[in-house]
Amino acid sequence: MTNNFPEPVNPDFEHAVRDSFSRQGVMDTIGARMGLVVPGRCEIELPFHDGVSQQDGFFHGGMICTIADSAAGYAAMTLMPAGARVLTVEYKMNFLKPGAGDKLVARGEVLHPEPDLTVCRGDVYVQKGGAESLCAASIQTLICLMPK
Amino acid sequence: MTNNFPEPVNPDFEHAVRDSFSRQGVMDTIGARMGLVVPGRCEIELPFHDGVSQQDGFFHGGMICTIADSAAGYAAMTLMPAGARVLTVEYKMNFLKPGAGDKLVARGEVLHPEPDLTVCRGDVYVQKGGAESLCAASIQTLICLMPK
Amino acid sequence: MTNNFPEPVNPDFEHAVRDSFSRQGVMDTIGARMGLVVPGRCEIELPFHDGVSQQDGFFHGGMICTIADSAAGYAAMTLMPAGARVLTVEYKMNFLKPGAGDKLVARGEVLHPEPDLTVCRGDVYVQKGGAESLCAASIQTLICLMPK
Amino acid sequence: MTNNFPEPVNPDFEHAVRDSFSRQGVMDTIGARMGLVVPGRCEIELPFHDGVSQQDGFFHGGMICTIADSAAGYAAMTLMPAGARVLTVEYKMNFLKPGAGDKLVARGEVLHPEPDLTVCRGDVYVQKGGAESLCAASIQTLICLMPK
Repeated sequence: MTNNFPEPVNPDFEHAVRDSFSRQGVMDTIGARMGLVVPGRCEIELPFHDGVSQQDGFFHGGMICTIADSAAGYAAMTLMPAGARVLTVEYKMNFLKPGAGDKLVARGEVLHPEPDLTVCRGDVYVQKGGAESLCAASIQTLICLMPK
Repeated sequence: MTNNFPEPVNPDFEHAVRDSFSRQGVMDTIGARMGLVVPGRCEIELPFHDGVSQQDGFFHGGMICTIADSAAGYAAMTLMPAGARVLTVEYKMNFLKPGAGDKLVARGEVLHPEPDLTVCRGDVYVQKGGAESLCAASIQTLICLMPK
Repeated sequence: MTNNFPEPVNPDFEHAVRDSFSRQGVMDTIGARMGLVVPGRCEIELPFHDGVSQQDGFFHGGMICTIADSAAGYAAMTLMPAGARVLTVEYKMNFLKPGAGDKLVARGEVLHPEPDLTVCRGDVYVQKGGAESLCAASIQTLICLMPK
Repeated sequence: MTNNFPEPVNPDFEHAVRDSFSRQGVMDTIGARMGLVVPGRCEIELPFHDGVSQQDGFFHGGMICTIADSAAGYAAMTLMPAGARVLTVEYKMNFLKPGAGDKLVARGEVLHPEPDLTVCRGDVYVQKGGAESLCAASIQTLICLMPK
């Protein structure tokens, strides 16, 4: 899918996104890192360790959702005004294959930007020994809140 | 909604559930605890600490999903045969209000048990100063895998 | 689930709902009828006929969704101001069993009313020979639009 | 997204799909037509008429879902063995903009084919005066049932 995103209205969008991410305590807890941040797109990576596993030694589904949700939210935030807060209204995740590998990469992408509600896709890939495959696909609805 | 669940086919269902939970490394990482485990229902609790927060100091949506997903999965597992593994096929989560409080409680409940695919609801409540309110509602589809 | 809905702000909510329904051309096309309309809840019924079937002679999933979507939307509308329009932002439907029977009844219920976004559940029951069973469960997010 | 689908195992997949579609009574009721049918992809079109409208004169959301659901289901069916039946387990739909136009085109695409569960995307475009835009995006989970 090719999207033509509008120009970011906040020239400092990358700083705003990375600053917000740094205040998500949970990302430090689980060891996730922010990768690419460009208009309408954002990536978050999570290396495997026992502390993010489910009972079979794979990435826990909750971890897949945690980074997909944030990647989609920050993709939306790249197109929002300075000072905006982004909250997830809802999302839906399909797990396509077990998250068995060395690293997850969540790629959030804006599907439909609007002033109030933004719809994003968040695809999560698992990397193992240099190869990468899609392991989960999601759709998110996000709301933009401006300080009063 | 009142559900009449079938009798558990595994008399040791509670042990199977608690044993599997204890092997989810992520639950230890985030500080989640298993509560009630009865046929067709399961609860998981998560006390608040900075390590599970998002940028505004609330519970991160990914944490809400992590415990909802597992609560629903283990609710389904209570009705499955001994030795069964349960995997989440997909789920959908609506965030109703910010997760602002002292503790989350995820309540998973089987909505429709079938030999292969089970559909569950996972409602997440936030507790603050003794009061409790619904902060997120989800539906999960789970698959039962038997060892070959 | 027991919901305590706020008092309807539009005393003529029932008329507003039934009037809007009567302008949904598709309901006439498929033969759906509005049933109960009370604060926070709404029902829509659809008798079976060949014109609403899928390839195996059951109710088509699209028909299940059509009445679930409208029942949830009108449940939300019962709590909205006079003149409000309600649009579905998104929804998610789980099909629990085939829609094999004489009649469908979709029951929409408000789960979380807010001034802008309302979250509803839409459960669809199939009736056959006097018995009724849940055949599909959904969650909807709806937005309230006021005329400018 | 570029998908490399496996070769269809049923050389007559197109006939199987079109034959099944012709037995969906609802498609005749609403005036939908099947378009493209290729491995892993399927399109269904619906011209506008009053009988598929909601209260504001746009395409009813239920109609958008009806053709998206079937387009995704038949996309999945193109990769299934002869004699297979495909049922929708669940789906999730985001409405991106009102369905205001002359015609809808639902494009179903297989995202992850498996022997039992297939995950598809179903995007719905609205055409108006020669231009086309995405008005709804969905994800479906489908199950393949073989005759016993």
